[in-house]
Amino acid sequence: MANKKTTLKDIAIALNISTAAVSKALNDDSRISIKTKEAVKKVAKELNYQPNHLASALRKGKSNLVGVIVPRTNSNFFSSVIQNIEEVLNKKGYNIIITQSNESYKKECSNIDTLLFTQVDGIIASMANETTNLAYFEKVKSKGIPLILFDRGENDLNVDYIGINDYDSSHMIVEHLINQGCKRIAHIGGYRHTRIFNNRIRGYVDAIKKHQLPADEQLLLESNLTIEDGREKMLELLQLKNRPDAVYVASDFAALGALQILQEKNIQVPNEIALVGFGNEPFTAMVTPALSTINQHSGEIGKMAANTFLELADVAELKQTLNKKILQAELIVRDSSKRK
Amino acid sequence: MANKKTTLKDIAIALNISTAAVSKALNDDSRISIKTKEAVKKVAKELNYQPNHLASALRKGKSNLVGVIVPRTNSNFFSSVIQNIEEVLNKKGYNIIITQSNESYKKECSNIDTLLFTQVDGIIASMANETTNLAYFEKVKSKGIPLILFDRGENDLNVDYIGINDYDSSHMIVEHLINQGCKRIAHIGGYRHTRIFNNRIRGYVDAIKKHQLPADEQLLLESNLTIEDGREKMLELLQLKNRPDAVYVASDFAALGALQILQEKNIQVPNEIALVGFGNEPFTAMVTPALSTINQHSGEIGKMAANTFLELADVAELKQTLNKKILQAELIVRDSSKRK
Repeated sequence: MANKKTTLKDIAIALNISTAAVSKALNDDSRISIKTKEAVKKVAKELNYQPNHLASALRKGKSNLVGVIVPRTNSNFFSSVIQNIEEVLNKKGYNIIITQSNESYKKECSNIDTLLFTQVDGIIASMANETTNLAYFEKVKSKGIPLILFDRGENDLNVDYIGINDYDSSHMIVEHLINQGCKRIAHIGGYRHTRIFNNRIRGYVDAIKKHQLPADEQLLLESNLTIEDGREKMLELLQLKNRPDAVYVASDFAALGALQILQEKNIQVPNEIALVGFGNEPFTAMVTPALSTINQHSGEIGKMAANTFLELADVAELKQTLNKKILQAELIVRDSSKRK
Repeated sequence: MANKKTTLKDIAIALNISTAAVSKALNDDSRISIKTKEAVKKVAKELNYQPNHLASALRKGKSNLVGVIVPRTNSNFFSSVIQNIEEVLNKKGYNIIITQSNESYKKECSNIDTLLFTQVDGIIASMANETTNLAYFEKVKSKGIPLILFDRGENDLNVDYIGINDYDSSHMIVEHLINQGCKRIAHIGGYRHTRIFNNRIRGYVDAIKKHQLPADEQLLLESNLTIEDGREKMLELLQLKNRPDAVYVASDFAALGALQILQEKNIQVPNEIALVGFGNEPFTAMVTPALSTINQHSGEIGKMAANTFLELADVAELKQTLNKKILQAELIVRDSSKRK
């Protein structure tokens, strides 16, 4: 198995003519003699040369590829968004390529470079947990390549964005828990530097204040929201002198970790501690007790992100207005928080 | 936001010189005058031209990109394989781009075209359920691009392959169920045209025969192995006059669908019907009863696939021997099949 593709140069060397002449011959350019064309095509076949569609895309400045960057693919939210982006774009003749940042800023930068390298016509991205420096996304913007952010975006970037109303979602959750009789509601949130998690924290804090519940600083923890960290943070909450009677976790994965700890410690859910997650991952309906959570409308987000790209790809001139599409999330109440 | 990248041609038109001259000027070719070089660089800057690293990759025939094709990313098995491929290849300076076939042959062909278009240095793939025609994979081979298949591969393609021993895995499962006292063991299998599923079916049939259990044709069903079809096929099995006392399902997703039906019908698992899945998806440990399943060693498969690519990428000449790396799977026994 040869590890190097035959290039125009290889054919040029074999025939002792210029690379430009080879290229013209393969494109049936009238400036090249029939004899040379035949010779070039014969050698091209012998060397198993494959015409390079990419070269043509480079000339035209269009690849019909859209790059997608997600923190990870093994979350139902992200894979469902991807699925829906793909369905919309495939119908319009675009293919998508997916890269994952694994929540690493460095990896995200390298993903952006990879996608620019492959000449994508646009990038649809959700940012890594680690990302605070926006220089790489600014680079995409400066190249005039349509950039659409979803779920995890930043106002400062001033690009099109699709997501749910995280602030309101926190209010819904806190008010649901109050309706169930909970009085000390803790929040295991994401990192504040990420807009969506900051909005969820703000929503939680404001809802607590609005209903005059104790706004105890010890009840608010920041987390990377993995299953493991959900376990850690739940253990921290259980060590408090005055422990919470409800925990709202900003991700289903961390909520699952929290649930595992509660079960290991034989703490009754929801009667001793009620639990609500975020994201409506499929496992939330399967665990016992089934986990109350927030439906983020991943399908809608994917479709809207794809359609926003299609709009941008059609607009030759500077777009004047940005799309900020904020969907209203839906609270799904299950056994983990149903006391009445 | 402009939707078209500045090309060499744009600069050439602006200066009324040839595209080749622009290219040479940007590459500081000694055949171009300093004056022209300066003019080209000035216009390039004004038009926000971005030097194209891909063009250089095209000349060198190396992109440092590896393409991965999976049936879908929202399965823990595939996302874990991807994760491990990525860890190994990132360390060696390769980036990966991911595409998913959604089990569609047509989509898989389009994925292959996309990856070839982006000039990947290699492709690591697991085939779609629908795929029976191997022409597209043959195309990759004929281009001399390293191709490695994992999990779902085909002997006929004669390329490197990494997977588990599916035939033996079926034996392990059937023998475990027999040890639990089960006497009528059904199998909801995948499609026979896919090698791994055919091997699981053969293993099941041979193990049944070996232990002189009833080899009832009605107990063997082919399925696309989604949650929905797992439900359908479980319903079919329950309608049999002489229904099974154990069901071995060739995928955890379909096993979950089967479990849902058993719970809806109030059939005791494992005492009335024991259940075993395949794949060790994380939810299998979380459902009640926890699902017995097969650990496919996704991490190892990913690492081995990546290392096989690295070997192939280093080998300039035709490799004489193919790697067929078959790992021994591990049976994880949980409550869904534990009768004793």
